[in-house]
Amino acid sequence: MQTWKPTEYFKRAPSISLSMFEIVKRDGLARLGRLETRSGVLETPALLPVVNPKIFTITPRELYDEFGFRALITNSYIIKNSDDLKAKAQSEGLHKMLDFPGIIMTDSGTFQSHMYGEVEVTNDEMVEFQKSIGTDIGTVLDIFTEPFWTKEETAESIEITLERTQHACDIKGDMMINGVVQGSVYPDLREDCARRMASMDVDVHPIGGVVPLMEQYRYSELVDVIIASKKGLNPNRPVHLFGAGHPMLLALATLLGCDLFDSASYAKYARDDRMMFIDGTFRIPDMQSLDCNCPACRGQTIESLRKMDKKVREKLVARHNLYQITDELSMVKRYVKEGRLWELVEMRCRAHPALLEALRKLKEHSEFLELTEPISRESAMFYTGTETRARPLFKRYENKLLERYVAPTEKAALFPDGGKPYSRHYASEFNKVRRAGYTPIVMSAFGPVPAELDEIYPLAQSLFPEITDRETDEESERMTFEFLAAAGFKEVREFEDIEDGDMEFDADLLRAKATARYQFEIPAADALFRGNIELIKSKKTGKIRNVISDGEHVLSMRAGDGLYTLRAEGAKRIMEAVPSPKMRVIIMDDAVPFVSEGKNAFCQFIIDADPAIRPMEEVIVTDKNDRFVATGRAILTRNEIKSFRKGIAVKIRSGSGDEA
Amino acid sequence: MQTWKPTEYFKRAPSISLSMFEIVKRDGLARLGRLETRSGVLETPALLPVVNPKIFTITPRELYDEFGFRALITNSYIIKNSDDLKAKAQSEGLHKMLDFPGIIMTDSGTFQSHMYGEVEVTNDEMVEFQKSIGTDIGTVLDIFTEPFWTKEETAESIEITLERTQHACDIKGDMMINGVVQGSVYPDLREDCARRMASMDVDVHPIGGVVPLMEQYRYSELVDVIIASKKGLNPNRPVHLFGAGHPMLLALATLLGCDLFDSASYAKYARDDRMMFIDGTFRIPDMQSLDCNCPACRGQTIESLRKMDKKVREKLVARHNLYQITDELSMVKRYVKEGRLWELVEMRCRAHPALLEALRKLKEHSEFLELTEPISRESAMFYTGTETRARPLFKRYENKLLERYVAPTEKAALFPDGGKPYSRHYASEFNKVRRAGYTPIVMSAFGPVPAELDEIYPLAQSLFPEITDRETDEESERMTFEFLAAAGFKEVREFEDIEDGDMEFDADLLRAKATARYQFEIPAADALFRGNIELIKSKKTGKIRNVISDGEHVLSMRAGDGLYTLRAEGAKRIMEAVPSPKMRVIIMDDAVPFVSEGKNAFCQFIIDADPAIRPMEEVIVTDKNDRFVATGRAILTRNEIKSFRKGIAVKIRSGSGDEA
Repeated sequence: MQTWKPTEYFKRAPSISLSMFEIVKRDGLARLGRLETRSGVLETPALLPVVNPKIFTITPRELYDEFGFRALITNSYIIKNSDDLKAKAQSEGLHKMLDFPGIIMTDSGTFQSHMYGEVEVTNDEMVEFQKSIGTDIGTVLDIFTEPFWTKEETAESIEITLERTQHACDIKGDMMINGVVQGSVYPDLREDCARRMASMDVDVHPIGGVVPLMEQYRYSELVDVIIASKKGLNPNRPVHLFGAGHPMLLALATLLGCDLFDSASYAKYARDDRMMFIDGTFRIPDMQSLDCNCPACRGQTIESLRKMDKKVREKLVARHNLYQITDELSMVKRYVKEGRLWELVEMRCRAHPALLEALRKLKEHSEFLELTEPISRESAMFYTGTETRARPLFKRYENKLLERYVAPTEKAALFPDGGKPYSRHYASEFNKVRRAGYTPIVMSAFGPVPAELDEIYPLAQSLFPEITDRETDEESERMTFEFLAAAGFKEVREFEDIEDGDMEFDADLLRAKATARYQFEIPAADALFRGNIELIKSKKTGKIRNVISDGEHVLSMRAGDGLYTLRAEGAKRIMEAVPSPKMRVIIMDDAVPFVSEGKNAFCQFIIDADPAIRPMEEVIVTDKNDRFVATGRAILTRNEIKSFRKGIAVKIRSGSGDEA
Repeated sequence: MQTWKPTEYFKRAPSISLSMFEIVKRDGLARLGRLETRSGVLETPALLPVVNPKIFTITPRELYDEFGFRALITNSYIIKNSDDLKAKAQSEGLHKMLDFPGIIMTDSGTFQSHMYGEVEVTNDEMVEFQKSIGTDIGTVLDIFTEPFWTKEETAESIEITLERTQHACDIKGDMMINGVVQGSVYPDLREDCARRMASMDVDVHPIGGVVPLMEQYRYSELVDVIIASKKGLNPNRPVHLFGAGHPMLLALATLLGCDLFDSASYAKYARDDRMMFIDGTFRIPDMQSLDCNCPACRGQTIESLRKMDKKVREKLVARHNLYQITDELSMVKRYVKEGRLWELVEMRCRAHPALLEALRKLKEHSEFLELTEPISRESAMFYTGTETRARPLFKRYENKLLERYVAPTEKAALFPDGGKPYSRHYASEFNKVRRAGYTPIVMSAFGPVPAELDEIYPLAQSLFPEITDRETDEESERMTFEFLAAAGFKEVREFEDIEDGDMEFDADLLRAKATARYQFEIPAADALFRGNIELIKSKKTGKIRNVISDGEHVLSMRAGDGLYTLRAEGAKRIMEAVPSPKMRVIIMDDAVPFVSEGKNAFCQFIIDADPAIRPMEEVIVTDKNDRFVATGRAILTRNEIKSFRKGIAVKIRSGSGDEA
């Protein structure tokens, strides 16, 4: 039966220096991470304020002490071109020169070439110079691909960038290096550049050449650029969206998997009397009032700002801008921790129609976004508008329902949407139509929901407005028709039109089986529900707790999301029924003793995994000969596990050794 | 010709005490106002923190000094029931007892009856007691109409509330009094109660009995309740949404015309370790992190909060909650000033599906909302989602287009949406199809836009995402079909299918006439465009500036919104063509000398006005014999002018006396 060999198809990324980046918490592509550098650990997502080495609007020391910034960017090209600064930087080092105890990233002159044309330095010189001044993370002198360039021009310049990057990797020494993904607005070039860049020994991946897109509000193209880059990159390095620093963009960019940001605008805007807010940038001369309680603005009015000495105001506005950024970044982190980043993004993207367009653009990328979309979340899903329907969990539900649902009867009874869970809201109506031989189907904003599945995430764990919109209604109707046909119902009626009957049914058993099929596919479910089935229910809630099949405890159901956790006996049944790598995470022999005792499975000890695994999914950990080792819950996808050398891949619930 | 007599149909509201409320700025029903009281002026919208006279979480003095609150609410029933407090309040007065130099409103025990059943006092006692302790704004002992009451119960209790209110008005003396609109969830009862309350001599109108709706997230019913109340009330008194204090509700309630709010939650939540944020309320034990830079939280972490002494934390959280409220209220005011409150509301209502439902509920009230919707705004309109289509200006555009547009040719050329203004984006294409005898029509998110109208507000002054949604597409298509039929086009083609031709046309003249018809209706436009027409254009922009008809300068076009300002000669032509009260604001003889010299027309001098006038509309000011006095721009609607005794009704551009 087992013809597939894990070691044959699995290929690790080329062996390069140990990644210094680790994921602490994730929500889809978004992640809270830790980047180790020789000047300390940077918690991501992080924004690096850009510091002009010639003029400090805010001193680096203030950035560190007052605002808590642990990393900044400054420009090595400007330093190199100033005899004074150059001498100082080379003699005492950047950290001392700037009086900044944190991490210092330097840019290389690329942006200057974008702004002012050619620069008079070579890549070699710039990399060596950055090393010589003690930069923590240097940057290749890459070529800025302008959005108006032809595809040919762009492709040619990428070759040069890649060559330079490879060379920079060769000579970087112990400096970390930015390998910048270029490719203008051509997604295929971006993806290809990213893929080749990912195979090099770089440490951080900025996505470059995007400032013009942001300046021109071309946010939907920015979405395409980020997604294309993410497709090509390995997940194990931080991604830096070069030049992105407006608070209104941070939630969206984090959702798409960007970890680092930088802002020169906080100071540039301050020079122009422009204040950043989460809903836009406003000029002080145009503002009707100042409504800000940030530590910089507290006690000020728009009149007092206007009267202020220009230099004093500039610093105040720069501090205000930084507070707006740090506040929003904190907010973004909170939403990632709560698993609610989609909600925040959908709120933020209402601030400007161009951002709304970017949000709508995500629909085109839902297949890619689905790969990292968790199976379940701790918090309920909030619907914020028709754009919510483009979240990958909608399409996933539709697909699973069409593929994995088995109708228990040939007749369907349709119910309109109602209170959740439906089986409580429609308790007596469900029973009545079931006695008449009908399967209750609720037409919800997710599409059709059979009564057996109404408690699984996100069907019960979601909130929608009762006033629906046309797109949701029409999609729900379309999906219901497709589903009714696919599930093979021969008769469909509105529930009110159905007379009571006297057929017998076991609603709990129907739910137990349907949930197993939905979660593990039909063959695995059949193996789990073999022979005599006993359901243990909670005395308090009446909900299914455990599934006992032929005397073996195979599954437990979580009250929170209505999905199963897999027991060892259940896992073994699945292993007999469906061949590896289905639901499997395969670990090295060295790790078997630990994992079988219930220790978590770490990335570096994993040989391979089922590519269909999604975050928070139940998995079976096996050895390379497909022998059962443990059950657990996946934190990472196969692609991520392959890429990372650190961090937990599977949270183990119980190992084979635990049973003894 | 003039059979209609203004003085015959005009009826003022019963003569009652001079209103102490004045509008400073408005955006639809939302308004920034000034309420005069004997303890100072209250700028609205304002939130009054609720102060428990027995325990101060934050002292009234701190509320005044630290937070800038100029008014608070305390409970006269609690004071009356405490021998100590009662004696103190009666001897030294409320202001001294609380040490609060601002405005003090008192509640009467009604909420206590809602919470704990009957209260042991009479209305008479409560009103007299409030007077005796120096309350600035007292409250009738009204009956709290619970949302679960039957309509009959509700109606009966309203009769008692109205009786008590009338009695309170009789005995209030120089205390201002709250006349509370009740009516549970029955809009007709709310409107009737409001209408009857409006005829009494009360000073402020709280909308009462809404706390349960807010506690249960029944925000869409709250919308119905507010709108029904607003329909019945006169616009000249502030409306207080009793018990509404959550920051996430303030923008929406202000949009619906509420001026006052209060919050007990800031302190109650603080006692329960619950922090208010613009996106919800969170329990400190559940919070993943504290991401707040408000003056109360600055420097704290969630861990430091948890470790803090309970009493210290309670005060800190109460202060945090107040800062959230004041920040949001400032934001609301800013958006009103900018004429962008719809945008803020549409952002805020994404924070919870129940708020989104409330936003969607507005569609049912668009006819009422249209009455105060301005003709034009200074800032561009942002589309934030399908809900934006329910704003009253969409329906208004459709109606005016269907009623007032005259097709210049019998053939229509359809264009897809594009850059704005369309006549620049499609410059050569428009010319080409026009030469072939076709009228260009762009299918936009507003529906069909004929080339002649593409620069008027909000068609050109609006931003939409380029990725449209199904509802907008379908509505645009439906409207286009209806419009093409109504306008009498005999042939319709896609613009690409049209061959060039050699017909002559005058695009400027077409625009000039179509705009006049759209803005002033067809008969007035015909009068304005009589005889020989000369168009004066801007040398710089090429845009129409002035319309000269038979040598008379009748109209000027504003570059900002593409609409006309009316000149005296134009006004006189309209007066000849269309009878009063069309476009008229009729003033008393006493005011004629002032207004004819260009002074603004104030409410108290106005006899009547055209009910079709909307804010920002061009109007003709006449005397009672329909003699021309001035041209100007309406600030208020007829209903508002009738109601207010203070404030500018029409900003005069030029009076008949100016011409001399």
